[in-house]
Amino acid sequence: MRKLRRNHRIGALMNILTERPNHIFTYNYFTERFNAAKSTISEDIVIAKELVEELDLGCIETISGAAGGVKFVPKMSKERTKEFLVELSDKFKEKDRLLTGGFIYMTDILYSPNIANCIGKVFASKFLTEEIDYVVTVETKGIPISMMTAQALDVPLVIIRRNARVTEGPTVSINYVTGSTKKIQTMSLSRRAIKEGSKVLVVDDFMKAGGTAKGIQDMMKEFKADVAGIGVLIATEEPKKKLVDNYISLLTLKGIDEEKQEIYIEPNLDILEG
Amino acid sequence: MRKLRRNHRIGALMNILTERPNHIFTYNYFTERFNAAKSTISEDIVIAKELVEELDLGCIETISGAAGGVKFVPKMSKERTKEFLVELSDKFKEKDRLLTGGFIYMTDILYSPNIANCIGKVFASKFLTEEIDYVVTVETKGIPISMMTAQALDVPLVIIRRNARVTEGPTVSINYVTGSTKKIQTMSLSRRAIKEGSKVLVVDDFMKAGGTAKGIQDMMKEFKADVAGIGVLIATEEPKKKLVDNYISLLTLKGIDEEKQEIYIEPNLDILEG
Repeated sequence: MRKLRRNHRIGALMNILTERPNHIFTYNYFTERFNAAKSTISEDIVIAKELVEELDLGCIETISGAAGGVKFVPKMSKERTKEFLVELSDKFKEKDRLLTGGFIYMTDILYSPNIANCIGKVFASKFLTEEIDYVVTVETKGIPISMMTAQALDVPLVIIRRNARVTEGPTVSINYVTGSTKKIQTMSLSRRAIKEGSKVLVVDDFMKAGGTAKGIQDMMKEFKADVAGIGVLIATEEPKKKLVDNYISLLTLKGIDEEKQEIYIEPNLDILEG
Repeated sequence: MRKLRRNHRIGALMNILTERPNHIFTYNYFTERFNAAKSTISEDIVIAKELVEELDLGCIETISGAAGGVKFVPKMSKERTKEFLVELSDKFKEKDRLLTGGFIYMTDILYSPNIANCIGKVFASKFLTEEIDYVVTVETKGIPISMMTAQALDVPLVIIRRNARVTEGPTVSINYVTGSTKKIQTMSLSRRAIKEGSKVLVVDDFMKAGGTAKGIQDMMKEFKADVAGIGVLIATEEPKKKLVDNYISLLTLKGIDEEKQEIYIEPNLDILEG
């Protein structure tokens, strides 16, 4: 390949770093890919750092030593996060989402790659410093947002199944009681899905009383894994006391008025602090 | 915001375009975001086009007219796709993946964000010109790769459930017969998940006789949606005749020798042609 000009290299560098956030790329990777000297790449990275800061996209970190290199840590700015959460809660308020029985149709939002990507970035931004080893969820509706969170943190996703599968080898199954309907449910996870002593972030789409989250926490004990936090997209305001306490939610569902066809849902702007 | 230098703008431009492939961003979006004149942005885009071509990352297209703007169409190069498929089949060959009953443990691969992202890009590259409206899959194991395919195409993901859910409103349910075990199964999808007359790409992780893919095809008929293609990660070599024919698979499972603990799986390099 012929030598690239500086602004070509900067563009390509940002493409590569953006594609795989939080992943450490070695300097060698770029010297080979761009056919450039290490000193040139170092200068490029300084420029990339500047632009990422100037535009409030997060930060670019350089790691020294044998396992060293450079990584892009995207962080949604407070301003952008606020804007996004307000837009998101407006979307959930749309009247035609109301279903018989007081349920809300939400899969079109949860399965939109762009929205799921933004949700994943908000969760990742909150747990960036926790050195998470896995993102854990339970099937099905929370999988897309969990996948995007895992991508933003550059860690594997783990999906707990409702039933043990032959395709997962030896599994650990637990029973748990749903917090609101008091039904006994099962969840099941392959023995080899999580290494002992890991740190996990639990992600799910919806929390009412927190029974499922509590179940996942219990499951994690079986794997001697530490739950660093729980991120849910929507938590209901009632019951106030959930079965888990170490969770954050992006939106709060305050209630539904079936007669007026109103959904009362608000962004939790206090997650923007700290 | 103060004015950005050109290489800052190029880096930021590539960050924004890479974050959301196949999405059309207006020129206004960039003139506002970068506080720069339209002519300046046009010049930046010319440079971005050059670098994307030079590094074989796909292409940047400019669309004129009222709905006009610019989009990044990432395309994995043939060389990189080949390399990726060979690495991937080597991963599936690892001896300790073999489970009792001749099953292969594969969730760690399917749920790796980076691998799923690459798989999604390969599928998206194959169906780029088809004007896909939705990516459709059936729960559970195929969801992450389907989500990444949907992201690469900038279209919504649709997940068919095994059972109808109260949270999805009115649903369409169909029965289908699994191709290999001849069991009757159900799949269910919210009436409002897909608009009539849409064009869909079906994605799944595994295909043996093709019963599930056939079921999805039948389901799509109920939505008057056209199946533009089916992408599966792994198809078994036997039975050669599947219940669907318009599919591509990235890998072929040729067989398993439980005694020798060998998994015979090969990349389908012929998908690189055409």
